[in-house]
Amino acid sequence: MRPSGRDLSEMRPVSIETGVTKHAEGSCMIRVGDTHVLCTATIEDRVPPFIKGSGLGWVTAEYGMLPRSTTSRMRREASAGKQGGRTVEIQRLIGRSLRAGVDRVALGERQITVDCDVIQADGGTRCAAITGGWVALRLAVNKLMKAGDVMSDPLVDPVAAVSCGLYAGQPVLDLDYPEDSEAGTDGNFIMTQSGRLIEVQMSAEGSTFSRDQMNTLLDLAEKGIGELAAKQLEAAGA
Amino acid sequence: MRPSGRDLSEMRPVSIETGVTKHAEGSCMIRVGDTHVLCTATIEDRVPPFIKGSGLGWVTAEYGMLPRSTTSRMRREASAGKQGGRTVEIQRLIGRSLRAGVDRVALGERQITVDCDVIQADGGTRCAAITGGWVALRLAVNKLMKAGDVMSDPLVDPVAAVSCGLYAGQPVLDLDYPEDSEAGTDGNFIMTQSGRLIEVQMSAEGSTFSRDQMNTLLDLAEKGIGELAAKQLEAAGA
Amino acid sequence: MRPSGRDLSEMRPVSIETGVTKHAEGSCMIRVGDTHVLCTATIEDRVPPFIKGSGLGWVTAEYGMLPRSTTSRMRREASAGKQGGRTVEIQRLIGRSLRAGVDRVALGERQITVDCDVIQADGGTRCAAITGGWVALRLAVNKLMKAGDVMSDPLVDPVAAVSCGLYAGQPVLDLDYPEDSEAGTDGNFIMTQSGRLIEVQMSAEGSTFSRDQMNTLLDLAEKGIGELAAKQLEAAGA
Amino acid sequence: MRPSGRDLSEMRPVSIETGVTKHAEGSCMIRVGDTHVLCTATIEDRVPPFIKGSGLGWVTAEYGMLPRSTTSRMRREASAGKQGGRTVEIQRLIGRSLRAGVDRVALGERQITVDCDVIQADGGTRCAAITGGWVALRLAVNKLMKAGDVMSDPLVDPVAAVSCGLYAGQPVLDLDYPEDSEAGTDGNFIMTQSGRLIEVQMSAEGSTFSRDQMNTLLDLAEKGIGELAAKQLEAAGA
Amino acid sequence: MRPSGRDLSEMRPVSIETGVTKHAEGSCMIRVGDTHVLCTATIEDRVPPFIKGSGLGWVTAEYGMLPRSTTSRMRREASAGKQGGRTVEIQRLIGRSLRAGVDRVALGERQITVDCDVIQADGGTRCAAITGGWVALRLAVNKLMKAGDVMSDPLVDPVAAVSCGLYAGQPVLDLDYPEDSEAGTDGNFIMTQSGRLIEVQMSAEGSTFSRDQMNTLLDLAEKGIGELAAKQLEAAGA
Amino acid sequence: MRPSGRDLSEMRPVSIETGVTKHAEGSCMIRVGDTHVLCTATIEDRVPPFIKGSGLGWVTAEYGMLPRSTTSRMRREASAGKQGGRTVEIQRLIGRSLRAGVDRVALGERQITVDCDVIQADGGTRCAAITGGWVALRLAVNKLMKAGDVMSDPLVDPVAAVSCGLYAGQPVLDLDYPEDSEAGTDGNFIMTQSGRLIEVQMSAEGSTFSRDQMNTLLDLAEKGIGELAAKQLEAAGA
Repeated sequence: MRPSGRDLSEMRPVSIETGVTKHAEGSCMIRVGDTHVLCTATIEDRVPPFIKGSGLGWVTAEYGMLPRSTTSRMRREASAGKQGGRTVEIQRLIGRSLRAGVDRVALGERQITVDCDVIQADGGTRCAAITGGWVALRLAVNKLMKAGDVMSDPLVDPVAAVSCGLYAGQPVLDLDYPEDSEAGTDGNFIMTQSGRLIEVQMSAEGSTFSRDQMNTLLDLAEKGIGELAAKQLEAAGA
Repeated sequence: MRPSGRDLSEMRPVSIETGVTKHAEGSCMIRVGDTHVLCTATIEDRVPPFIKGSGLGWVTAEYGMLPRSTTSRMRREASAGKQGGRTVEIQRLIGRSLRAGVDRVALGERQITVDCDVIQADGGTRCAAITGGWVALRLAVNKLMKAGDVMSDPLVDPVAAVSCGLYAGQPVLDLDYPEDSEAGTDGNFIMTQSGRLIEVQMSAEGSTFSRDQMNTLLDLAEKGIGELAAKQLEAAGA
Repeated sequence: MRPSGRDLSEMRPVSIETGVTKHAEGSCMIRVGDTHVLCTATIEDRVPPFIKGSGLGWVTAEYGMLPRSTTSRMRREASAGKQGGRTVEIQRLIGRSLRAGVDRVALGERQITVDCDVIQADGGTRCAAITGGWVALRLAVNKLMKAGDVMSDPLVDPVAAVSCGLYAGQPVLDLDYPEDSEAGTDGNFIMTQSGRLIEVQMSAEGSTFSRDQMNTLLDLAEKGIGELAAKQLEAAGA
Repeated sequence: MRPSGRDLSEMRPVSIETGVTKHAEGSCMIRVGDTHVLCTATIEDRVPPFIKGSGLGWVTAEYGMLPRSTTSRMRREASAGKQGGRTVEIQRLIGRSLRAGVDRVALGERQITVDCDVIQADGGTRCAAITGGWVALRLAVNKLMKAGDVMSDPLVDPVAAVSCGLYAGQPVLDLDYPEDSEAGTDGNFIMTQSGRLIEVQMSAEGSTFSRDQMNTLLDLAEKGIGELAAKQLEAAGA
Repeated sequence: MRPSGRDLSEMRPVSIETGVTKHAEGSCMIRVGDTHVLCTATIEDRVPPFIKGSGLGWVTAEYGMLPRSTTSRMRREASAGKQGGRTVEIQRLIGRSLRAGVDRVALGERQITVDCDVIQADGGTRCAAITGGWVALRLAVNKLMKAGDVMSDPLVDPVAAVSCGLYAGQPVLDLDYPEDSEAGTDGNFIMTQSGRLIEVQMSAEGSTFSRDQMNTLLDLAEKGIGELAAKQLEAAGA
Repeated sequence: MRPSGRDLSEMRPVSIETGVTKHAEGSCMIRVGDTHVLCTATIEDRVPPFIKGSGLGWVTAEYGMLPRSTTSRMRREASAGKQGGRTVEIQRLIGRSLRAGVDRVALGERQITVDCDVIQADGGTRCAAITGGWVALRLAVNKLMKAGDVMSDPLVDPVAAVSCGLYAGQPVLDLDYPEDSEAGTDGNFIMTQSGRLIEVQMSAEGSTFSRDQMNTLLDLAEKGIGELAAKQLEAAGA
């Protein structure tokens, strides 16, 4: 029934390749089906003004899509002169989600910027960005710990994200682009490996949904997050 | 226990005053406690390029805050030269939420723009904007129906929004600013009067939450939405 | 002869409601006929770089129109990405006019920003903004004096503004929108209650005017300013 | 008493050199003392959208200052990414003033853009721009008339501009930069050769002025305009 | 003598992997040592306004660097709100260079946009972008020819680019970042496989160079271009 | 054969008039045929952040064209809101070229900004800007030396620029606009009087060129630079 032939609760194949750029403190290419996102983590000693002197660390994120990561070419945001609303929304989400899994006291007064650049898009780019972004962050933090710059691990519980939605009336896990563009309701679920919720964003444009449907999608999401967290830990060598 | 002395499941006083500007096709000032938002609806015959010729209508929204609607003065976005990320996120949410309650075939090929401008802010401005925005939309659509430009009512079920969150560990309904700035988890719930969900946005920065807690907040939200929808219908003279 | 039926030298009804937002140090809603402008005054301890350390104070102003304050919806300047030429011109005029009535030594090294936001427009918004802006400024200064932060009153003489013009060949006081859009010549007159001139801006697009006509308009303006100043003092509780 | 040693009612030396660039339909370099402004007029067949099809012509203006036209270098507006408030104000004034002297029916549906670029500034640049701009406009219109594209002369009465002000308490004509930066009150007066008023802008920052003082400045302005108009006609070969 | 241990006239290892994204009409990842650039070619039926109706085709290019493609993180241009001067210069160079190798009549009235995004930078990114960009262009044109949309091949002679410079006084081929940042003189040479010159850009900041030195660098460039062109043809399957 | 009737190796008449604005530390109007560029040099005590405290000086340049310096009016960049790609490219070239002729240690920690504004364009504006810019720089440095602020002369060798190209298949010196717009290949050559190369930019859009042709153009350029340098020294009174 799904265009890809997957079962309702079956994720696309997921791979996470680390160490893909030589400059970044942490990096990976995450591939969730045909969605490929390059994630890098950059450590800097400066923090945003509003926490200067607090001793707390900060994690922030930026998101972009290469112009031809999509079916038809999108205008390059740098040339358009600003980031679109969707971009801004997504990068704020990535930043908030990753921060929720960070012990900012343990991190110490430094900033880690996670850049997520979509190389090829086929639905679910923001979820792949969060999942891969956590791996890049994990690797950068490992470097800090190895160097003795950070004493206790600020990353206690992996953070991953997956989308679920109602496609042709059925609850499905991990929507690809053909499903995403048809789904009546879809949601992004960001959770920790241990099953705690970080962010839930469910949205219905043109149709509404019930609490029962919402709960079914949450069940699917929990299954997907479990699988993603295992991949994250494996990739990060933990 | 709440700074305002309210019960955990008690909303702030809500009033919706209609007809507050003489130019707009629909308008109201919604006051949810000390949060005051001016909402206007503008009908235009043109639609966005991507639906031109489709026969479908469009509803969109813009959001702004007066510079001194807040405790300390914010920089005016027009003078800063762009809308901030938060503004963009909120106005996209308002537009999506209102569209979910609109029969776009019945509306016909025209656009209604709902402007939500915060005159005074005390928490929950996006929810007030959606709730008041629907009333402005309702009044504008009434005008179309009275003029015979629209035959069957494109607004079947009122759309309202409320925030709930965990404040000092307790689930509370309709967070005001002192609560909002302290809450571990908070969510915005957009629903129809009939209890269908349109958008759920729950977010935890620095702490996570469980599915049980999520369900408790949804229960509170349903109560609040019921009260808001009654106010909306009363204000719109339905 | 006037569309509104007013006498040539008759102003529209004027009301000034103070204390309209709880956050600002001074605020009022001024209504001149159907022109409604919300004015707030914000006190800050910082001053612009060019007077830092001089001991002098500064008063500045910003102006905006809500998108649907006008007959047809205007594009939101924050979304257009810049303030238009008319906006810039008006807010510079408001700032200059208010500063002319301020003893900047007595004010001391602090800045007061007066925000004037047009809620509903029907001609004469810049004049209403100056007149209402002075009241907001007055209230904010009162707060400084009460707190002992300012010793001698920096506001010696109320500042008000009114427009006059030649409508259908006749000199008229306080043009509303239907008159303003037809007037051959129109002018904005900013004066103190005591009759001193602060700014005179007379302009003829497509037709010219004589010194005699100019003097007649000034006579009308003096009458209007007198009435406005009385309203200002009454509103400010002086 | 004046820094330059001029009499109170004495203008700086004025010269207007025409034909200074080979591309423009009309051009001149106006020199009012050490203030030098290059003015060019460009004829185009298109008109702004709001008068398309009306048969009426349009005259508009743009103003700029070379970065080192001033005592200390100013930032280039093209590099700053926008025209400053003062620039916008001035170019709107130039456009309005020139249009007031144009019979737009006689001009026919075409646009003339007058560019005024300050090569060297020493006070009074906007007035020099209007006075020189009219000459460039005159020459461009001559070309249209010679070619038979325009039948009756759309420029009936020369338009010129001069500043006057109160310097050290004395009314003076044609302020140069040292006077301008000290003047309590200063005004820009745009008139036709025949003595009709087009625009009066008087402004007092920090001090106010009386109607008597205003009238004295107007007398001075009339004298200056007469002298400027003679120079304009001589330069334009009329 | 070179930091990398290469001979003076030795290029870094070059690989060109094609078909790296599923959406683009042509794509490759070019790796010149540690410089990795992703190149995609997009075919569109529209052309820029200035050649509409001419029957001629157009090839244009855009260039970007991922924020962490460099040793320390660069600010994302989309977030800075504009493309920097270096970016603009480079993408204009890429476009001009590729166009020089295109028979625009044979291409027909369509546009091909070549996007070059630097994934990892280690000197010579603009040269790698041109060399890889030509391969992406080649693949896209192959698709047009296979589909019968283009009859005679518009790409007659491969276009490649290489940098040469004076490093520690010695002429070297294909500068990497450590060399580039120290070089007194460096140049970018764009040529066809057949040895014709398309663009020569030699630049000396702080030191100058002689015609003899220039000729030596050109000799080196010819050698490098020959090697690159062989790789291009091999990758494109020609 | 050339539209102007010049010999292949004949430059247009060149004149350099110095002291053309009273404010700048150095200034000249350079006229190369009908191309007229106003060049000013501004000395400032501050330097860019990246050399603060190094003791080294900096020379930078900005370039602009008056809107009607060209055959048809160009949009004013300040009003367009940004400098175009061509402008950015040219001003970077001017800055680099002038810096190559400066002993930055001798200059001391100060910045000289050279503004080059095209008053009238007829081809070769960037070359005229560099040649005239060097004269303005020379005059400003003379002022520093006279004042004893600089001890040893930081300008050892004049820097000049000229364009050459293949017009109708023939190598020609100093292209004017009619030649420039037709030339198959054209180049800009920046050299010192002593014949050292600073920058070579040769470009072929649509046709390619050989090394022999390149050498012929370099020969022409050397001739032109010699003539220009003589004019520079004469103008600067050296």
